[in-house]
Amino acid sequence: MNYPSKLIEEAVGEIAKLPGIGKKTALRLALHLLKRDGEQTASLAEALVKMRLNTQYCHQCHNISDDELCQICINPRRDASVVCIVEDTRDVLAIENTSQFKGLYHVLGGIISPLEGIGPGDLNIDSLLSRLSDNGCEVREIILALSPTMEGDTTAFYLTKRLRQFSVKLSTIARGIPIGGDLEYADEVTLGRSIVSRIAYE
Amino acid sequence: MNYPSKLIEEAVGEIAKLPGIGKKTALRLALHLLKRDGEQTASLAEALVKMRLNTQYCHQCHNISDDELCQICINPRRDASVVCIVEDTRDVLAIENTSQFKGLYHVLGGIISPLEGIGPGDLNIDSLLSRLSDNGCEVREIILALSPTMEGDTTAFYLTKRLRQFSVKLSTIARGIPIGGDLEYADEVTLGRSIVSRIAYE
Repeated sequence: MNYPSKLIEEAVGEIAKLPGIGKKTALRLALHLLKRDGEQTASLAEALVKMRLNTQYCHQCHNISDDELCQICINPRRDASVVCIVEDTRDVLAIENTSQFKGLYHVLGGIISPLEGIGPGDLNIDSLLSRLSDNGCEVREIILALSPTMEGDTTAFYLTKRLRQFSVKLSTIARGIPIGGDLEYADEVTLGRSIVSRIAYE
Repeated sequence: MNYPSKLIEEAVGEIAKLPGIGKKTALRLALHLLKRDGEQTASLAEALVKMRLNTQYCHQCHNISDDELCQICINPRRDASVVCIVEDTRDVLAIENTSQFKGLYHVLGGIISPLEGIGPGDLNIDSLLSRLSDNGCEVREIILALSPTMEGDTTAFYLTKRLRQFSVKLSTIARGIPIGGDLEYADEVTLGRSIVSRIAYE
């Protein structure tokens, strides 16, 4: 495509490097910024650079944080005896939004995926093990909250093997028919699993 | 949503101001930038600010340009006797990509839309009229290339009224069944128009 301006072309190229944004969308965004007040572009650029330079990962759970320890880890009202293992920060946010979990997290920073060349060594697994080996460790239960995909299951299998040495209860989030889901349209694997792992009425 | 970091929250807020990007996508983009090299964020921010500060609109056709006149207007090989009127720069790019038009453009910078409060005064119409009134004006034909929507048709109607005073040929791009389109699935208005404005074999 012949862009009317070199500067636009550069900006479109940079925007289109973001995931899920192609050249056409990038151009739309660039033209939007051109139409708006210059301040909007300036504050967008500043917010991005400030975020990139100043955020860090929590030393304990590897969640994104403004300080050495994240707001969840330093919160005395959270239950430090339960740790939920998730793939990334977005999963922490998703679980936090449910208001159903009061424990701490451990963010793996990815998932084992041989296809993408991501092995256990690329994830925050060693720090999880040393967190559990620590003398003052209060962790009694670990919940694996990984996506029910091939990669998620591989990671869960690897983790359960590594975590067996610790005297902690291991569990995984329930798989089944989503609330509001229609049995008729559920896939066979999910429906089958939901029967195998049926929940008894108390 | 409770963001793990104020800086992320600010960045997400700024990204989500862009059209078509919600908070979830904005978070995904922010986390993507955090995972990548800091240089990517820096060059994205720089490209945006540079673009916003340094691009201008062509004094003649209002297309985006690095200089006072855009590369199309200063190109001596373009046919200055035909001017194509479009809504915005994206339409110029789309038409340029067809390689079927060798004339010049006039970018209105919007379209008449009473619902959004955009009237003729907000568009680059006065400059079009003065461009045509100019003594050295070579324009012989004006092509309206506006979207076949209510707003596009309103704008076209308004323009034809204003342009009648000049001795220029007025035309609009053809409406009809798209190439590769299936008659069966074409909407009635388009199919009806394509019969009314049928093209005789020569």
